[in-house]
Amino acid sequence: MPHIALPEGFPGIRSLFMFNPVTAQPLNDLVQTLLHDPSTSTLTPGERELIATYTSSLNQCKYCATTHGAIAKYQLGGDAAVVEAVKIDPQSAEISDKLKALMKIAAKVQQDGRKVSTADVENARSQGATDKEIHDTVLIAAAFCMFNRYVDGLATWAPDDAAVYDAIGKQRASEGYHTKPFKVTSPA
Amino acid sequence: MPHIALPEGFPGIRSLFMFNPVTAQPLNDLVQTLLHDPSTSTLTPGERELIATYTSSLNQCKYCATTHGAIAKYQLGGDAAVVEAVKIDPQSAEISDKLKALMKIAAKVQQDGRKVSTADVENARSQGATDKEIHDTVLIAAAFCMFNRYVDGLATWAPDDAAVYDAIGKQRASEGYHTKPFKVTSPA
Repeated sequence: MPHIALPEGFPGIRSLFMFNPVTAQPLNDLVQTLLHDPSTSTLTPGERELIATYTSSLNQCKYCATTHGAIAKYQLGGDAAVVEAVKIDPQSAEISDKLKALMKIAAKVQQDGRKVSTADVENARSQGATDKEIHDTVLIAAAFCMFNRYVDGLATWAPDDAAVYDAIGKQRASEGYHTKPFKVTSPA
Repeated sequence: MPHIALPEGFPGIRSLFMFNPVTAQPLNDLVQTLLHDPSTSTLTPGERELIATYTSSLNQCKYCATTHGAIAKYQLGGDAAVVEAVKIDPQSAEISDKLKALMKIAAKVQQDGRKVSTADVENARSQGATDKEIHDTVLIAAAFCMFNRYVDGLATWAPDDAAVYDAIGKQRASEGYHTKPFKVTSPA
């Protein structure tokens, strides 16, 4: 049960967006530009969703890891296997060497920003990562350290039904984040 | 030295805002509404800046802890002593019992959102905190877990000169966050 009185039937962060619209707007704008808009990064939306999924998985945030895992799957053309592999260990997943190097940076950021070393950054550069891609990786990982804490710090509802996450993932991947909240009619 | 090529003479997050304006906009909007606007919270701007300062201090983010500490000081009418006391231990600082209870929640969020317990929330309520104030506390602490990681994960420049932070603090406290970046003409 959530720590505060939230609208019923809306899981995770959507219930918080309805509770406090004044912060929902910039948070939604952030995730739209950071993860979804094709023109704002040379990392694909699928790669960016994988970084968000991996960070959320490290933070053990069920709602965010499952939701963004489902979005990543749809952004990657339905490849559920790579999403599950990244959650377990990006270094042995079937992703590019550049993305593996960026995932190492994301894992450091998840622990503490100060842990990102010059060697981590040089390693990413040697795999072809640009300054902008290193920047985007750090900000995505940092942003999900916020979103995960916001969702779990207020004990929002995380459904158990995998079909709910899949439906949210399909909608977000195609429509982005400025869509209407996803209402679950019969809370599982 | 920053991990990526950032504009020189602009400390901390401001150099990142100039590097990537597309994410600067929602991040600045977030901090403006979350910390500065008087109408968006029943916590005062000073109390909200203290929560941001304390979280940044727990994350050992020099730039954010010192900057928001200076903003808090100006929002609290120049009370530097209470800011320093909160950084060391909010429970023995001269702040209200309600704010002490909210600081306990912020400290849990800084570690992991899942650590916030029903007892923590009931304790805050017993000291007069509303659902909205509990929400705002969780989001401020969560947001600074992002800002701290963004600033330190890219190794941005944190000046050593206390006068720089004081000048930034004075400006932000009076003008808010939608002001021009603070350029330090001779990097210390």
